[in-house]
Amino acid sequence: MKSLLFTFVGVVHLLCLSSGKAIYGNGISQRTFQEIKEEIATYGDVAKAIINHAIYGKAQNRSYERLALLVYAVGPRLSGSKSLEKAIQIMYQNLREDGLENVHLEPVKIPHWERGEESAVMLEPRIHKMAIFGLGSSIGTPPEGITAEALVVTSFNELQRRAPEARGKIVVYNQPYVNYSTTVLYRVRGAVEAAKVGAVASLIRSVTSFSIYSPHTGIQEYQDGVPKIPTACITVEDAEMMSGMASHGARIVIQLKMGAKSYPDADSFNTVAEIIGSKYPEQVVLVSGHLDSWDVGQGAMDDGGGAFISWEALSLIKDLGLRPKRTLRLVLWTAEEQGGIGAFQYYQLHKANISNYSLVMESDLGTFLPSGLQFTGSDKARAIMEEVMRLLQPINITQVFRNAEGTDINYWIQAGVPGASLLDDLFKYFSFHHSHGDTMTVMDPKEMNIAAALWAVVSYVVADMEEMLPRS
Amino acid sequence: MKSLLFTFVGVVHLLCLSSGKAIYGNGISQRTFQEIKEEIATYGDVAKAIINHAIYGKAQNRSYERLALLVYAVGPRLSGSKSLEKAIQIMYQNLREDGLENVHLEPVKIPHWERGEESAVMLEPRIHKMAIFGLGSSIGTPPEGITAEALVVTSFNELQRRAPEARGKIVVYNQPYVNYSTTVLYRVRGAVEAAKVGAVASLIRSVTSFSIYSPHTGIQEYQDGVPKIPTACITVEDAEMMSGMASHGARIVIQLKMGAKSYPDADSFNTVAEIIGSKYPEQVVLVSGHLDSWDVGQGAMDDGGGAFISWEALSLIKDLGLRPKRTLRLVLWTAEEQGGIGAFQYYQLHKANISNYSLVMESDLGTFLPSGLQFTGSDKARAIMEEVMRLLQPINITQVFRNAEGTDINYWIQAGVPGASLLDDLFKYFSFHHSHGDTMTVMDPKEMNIAAALWAVVSYVVADMEEMLPRS
Repeated sequence: MKSLLFTFVGVVHLLCLSSGKAIYGNGISQRTFQEIKEEIATYGDVAKAIINHAIYGKAQNRSYERLALLVYAVGPRLSGSKSLEKAIQIMYQNLREDGLENVHLEPVKIPHWERGEESAVMLEPRIHKMAIFGLGSSIGTPPEGITAEALVVTSFNELQRRAPEARGKIVVYNQPYVNYSTTVLYRVRGAVEAAKVGAVASLIRSVTSFSIYSPHTGIQEYQDGVPKIPTACITVEDAEMMSGMASHGARIVIQLKMGAKSYPDADSFNTVAEIIGSKYPEQVVLVSGHLDSWDVGQGAMDDGGGAFISWEALSLIKDLGLRPKRTLRLVLWTAEEQGGIGAFQYYQLHKANISNYSLVMESDLGTFLPSGLQFTGSDKARAIMEEVMRLLQPINITQVFRNAEGTDINYWIQAGVPGASLLDDLFKYFSFHHSHGDTMTVMDPKEMNIAAALWAVVSYVVADMEEMLPRS
Repeated sequence: MKSLLFTFVGVVHLLCLSSGKAIYGNGISQRTFQEIKEEIATYGDVAKAIINHAIYGKAQNRSYERLALLVYAVGPRLSGSKSLEKAIQIMYQNLREDGLENVHLEPVKIPHWERGEESAVMLEPRIHKMAIFGLGSSIGTPPEGITAEALVVTSFNELQRRAPEARGKIVVYNQPYVNYSTTVLYRVRGAVEAAKVGAVASLIRSVTSFSIYSPHTGIQEYQDGVPKIPTACITVEDAEMMSGMASHGARIVIQLKMGAKSYPDADSFNTVAEIIGSKYPEQVVLVSGHLDSWDVGQGAMDDGGGAFISWEALSLIKDLGLRPKRTLRLVLWTAEEQGGIGAFQYYQLHKANISNYSLVMESDLGTFLPSGLQFTGSDKARAIMEEVMRLLQPINITQVFRNAEGTDINYWIQAGVPGASLLDDLFKYFSFHHSHGDTMTVMDPKEMNIAAALWAVVSYVVADMEEMLPRS
């Protein structure tokens, strides 16, 4: 439904914009949309060359193989961990050896939290060891754990209604999965809301659309003035079971032990590499993914795939001897999972140059078979992006959706820079998201080839066109 | 493809058998197939009454709710465990309170194996804690564990080719998933084949079509004259990762600790209840599922669902005041997962009466939305079953496939008794099979209603027809 609607809106825009008038009368450009269309159409052969190289040529499967080498070597890459540090050093070497330009590291201080040993056991109505993941930034429990009765609720509203029952209890949220952005509030705010009504800990049902008894971790946030209580996710299965037990009148008692601890901020880096622009080197098209992950699985999907198709985009362009007019800048963010820490630092450092950013791109929703590009920008820019995406007709992935997503590019988008993100199968993505299932097993080299081809064509063409993308 | 083919074959049979001749000239019956068809058609109203009661009436969701009560109360039910014993006692009470007849327990000695504490850590090329499940009947390791280099192979053939490398190593099987019956050989024979070439332990890739880092346990078998070595399953993800690492030349070292232990056989029971036949009480239609499970998840799907739709079939028939001419016998098997131990005992005890068994039915492949009935029997019996399944036209589930499956009914089928099993979504089934994901979360009350309706209609009509199903 979403995609159909958006396509229709896009077509309407296109009709308006195709009238041939010089509608970009903003002082920057007097070119008609027809002229821009014709310019974009001239990239047909370049686009085909990129597609052929990425999908059928010597570069096929390269991004997958490069990613496997990294994640097999270092595993998951939590903010503040030695493995993230090692991954950044390896990537720095990789990018230099790949022959990219201006390869450098930009220092960032990042959070350092470790989960330590953790366990949860249902003691009543029967003994049952539960799979849990402490949530990022949670405090731990005392060494002997917290043993308390559970109060199972399905919503914040129910928690409010039953607030007098919550004191001294472990609040268990069995909230239904609606969609990620709605339901993730239970992960982010569950502990604070439970603490406000006197709970001693909180457990949330993992935020996922599908489960094989898989906990899914992620960041949570405390609030000034509200007591900090330990918080973890449990599986959908255990949340539903305890909900069922409670509805049958059972008294549920849980023992929760968490060794979670926060340490002083650690030194880290955003990793940067470029193909410097031939004509407007100070102007930038940014392509990105984040190098950190949660400390579970391999961080192959979130966001190894996004980081590696972004690198691959530059590699493909370089392989073909192309050099766009503007600078193509690859950024591999650090500490995205802690709230876009590396990206915030980058924005602070570079925002003075914001007028020179034509497009910011991030892939952080999987690199499965793409359904298209999500885009945020003016109607004029959208019409141009729709023309650019027509260049992907040979692989039949041409849709431009609304609302680019990406924690790391959001600072720029909020400030008016056009933004783009890769859209694919979100049901699949959130089935593995932040779980031990985020491994190379869910990645497909052929799908990564296609995602990289799309990423390279879009970034190259936007970086090479005569003019920057228009803003609102 | 399978279903289309089988339907076509079925139609051909039907055409041959519909000619009106007295083709059952086996001394038992002189009735024409047309007469049998007409008899079956008279059950249309009864079938509708069962369907309405099960799916839309007072019985809707009952089998699901009964199952939830049991599995929430006792959890998984491993052969030899206290929880299986408790489940049998609860079911005995349940069946008596339900007003079924001749409710009794038939004693069986069953295996008693416990996994104990277990862990596997990859020590090289980097530290990685792996999820494992020891395989049923495996021996344990010494308390300090077994630490050895891994030899990763993708098949028994590769193991044979590389036999000289295997001595002193832990063999890791990364066999691809073909289908359950093919691939399960790696679980069953993996340890024996590895021990034959001098390995000290073996780890198999879990036998599943889909994984979110979920190990899937199950029985394995030692062989006389071959040393017993400890064996466990690992996840698809870890098997693929170690395979990838090995192909990059990495040396992999694993520390495996298993506290697995076998104890003397335990006392258990097959649980039996009946609706005694009004005209031929000595003749039997048997409906069944197994009450034991693995010691992971809740055993809700394998085989709580099968056991509870079998009970539900009798409840539905009793609710409607129906009493078939033949006895409808419910059997809830014990120790199926250990190789059909309860079912073997039952067969030994009752086989003298084999000529009076019209049909043996087992549901042990899930109770999701059924695609139809799997059936093993003579062509004549198949043609009759196809007519019986036409009574399910109101819910549009009428297909009769080949090859009834069920460890527990197989003794009877091998001896020539017609057998039937419920077929549904096997991809889904094997995604959760023998894993922690086998819980009420994968069960759907509406799907169980439909499965129970089908189960009740088939068992009732076959038990009430004038004649037993013909054999070959």
